[in-house]
Amino acid sequence: MIRAIVFANGVMDGWPVGLTLSADRDLIIAADGGLAHCRRWEVTPHVVVGDMDSIAPGELTALEKTATEIIRHPARKDETDLELALKLAIDRGAEEIAVLGALGARWDMTFSNVLLLGSDFLSRTTVRLLDGVHELCCLQGSRQIRLHGRPGDLVSLLPISGNATGVSLKGLAYPLTDASLPFGTSHGVSNVFTGETASVTLKEGMLLISITRMAGKPF
Amino acid sequence: MIRAIVFANGVMDGWPVGLTLSADRDLIIAADGGLAHCRRWEVTPHVVVGDMDSIAPGELTALEKTATEIIRHPARKDETDLELALKLAIDRGAEEIAVLGALGARWDMTFSNVLLLGSDFLSRTTVRLLDGVHELCCLQGSRQIRLHGRPGDLVSLLPISGNATGVSLKGLAYPLTDASLPFGTSHGVSNVFTGETASVTLKEGMLLISITRMAGKPF
Repeated sequence: MIRAIVFANGVMDGWPVGLTLSADRDLIIAADGGLAHCRRWEVTPHVVVGDMDSIAPGELTALEKTATEIIRHPARKDETDLELALKLAIDRGAEEIAVLGALGARWDMTFSNVLLLGSDFLSRTTVRLLDGVHELCCLQGSRQIRLHGRPGDLVSLLPISGNATGVSLKGLAYPLTDASLPFGTSHGVSNVFTGETASVTLKEGMLLISITRMAGKPF
Repeated sequence: MIRAIVFANGVMDGWPVGLTLSADRDLIIAADGGLAHCRRWEVTPHVVVGDMDSIAPGELTALEKTATEIIRHPARKDETDLELALKLAIDRGAEEIAVLGALGARWDMTFSNVLLLGSDFLSRTTVRLLDGVHELCCLQGSRQIRLHGRPGDLVSLLPISGNATGVSLKGLAYPLTDASLPFGTSHGVSNVFTGETASVTLKEGMLLISITRMAGKPF
């Protein structure tokens, strides 16, 4: 299975807990300025994609002499650099995508990055946005997802496109069976892992799933 | 017109640019731990609402001796404290609501707070989430909203519940006329004020509107 690791251009305070990557096994993509995160973590991307407006010209020239592929888009484009990177990952056959550095800095970019998870072109792919302690993904109906955590980790379920119906939860402190979560209400916030796995089933709609790893975090 | 100012329990790095409030004119509500922000900014709320799990018992006892009204909900409730505060504001006749401290700290709470703007019970009220340089609001079709800013301020438009159709923009660098913005795409990100006012018209769907005040902010 091809896994893509995408470095976006937002905040990346720390390396996500439990994530290991290998240049042999994973397709590593830097979305424009996300290249700076690759530098910091000493990761060599296979591809850099974007309009290159967040990369210094000198750095780009240096990059052209390496094996890293550069895919340059015009500055006046309809997609953000992250959208371009995710489309590229899908085009190259990724069945699972982890995105680092997609949260923080600007609220509009953060929300856009999260809502992007609900795009049609990602409906059959598991895409996770990771920062140090958070994991965000989107479940589009009708599907089921298995979540991994530790007792006490928080799980919030937010309908992001109309109402979510046929919601069943297992392995969480507040289970649900074939329930409805109306859009705009906060009913699904702050559920809690009771063991190390949980499952979310959804018949119709779209759920943003947020996991907050609580070990050592005094929220 | 009754304006409500709600202090939520998220991050509040600074006082929102241009916001003035008066205890005579505004209905001031603290959503549970949002009371700490009131203390910091030396604002006396008219009402505190929530399950009081984020207020120290001693502080609550002291509060009971003041004119501040306390509305206590059970801890095991379906709504977040912010949702309770917004419902209270509407019940008390607020036609405009500004929310401070609704962003930051936990991603799930932040997204829940933002998605709350799309609730039915707020469909005819202008609710703005403010932090130092950001302003977020939600436009539900069919409606028009006038935005105030300065040339160079960023405006992003994100469909948050299905596609947004009949979108017309004036006063921005990339105008639109009766356009569609599909859910999940980043096409509406990073538009720019060309003057001091702009307008957004929406026929169907729901748009999250984010304004980022760029003066002095090197994004």
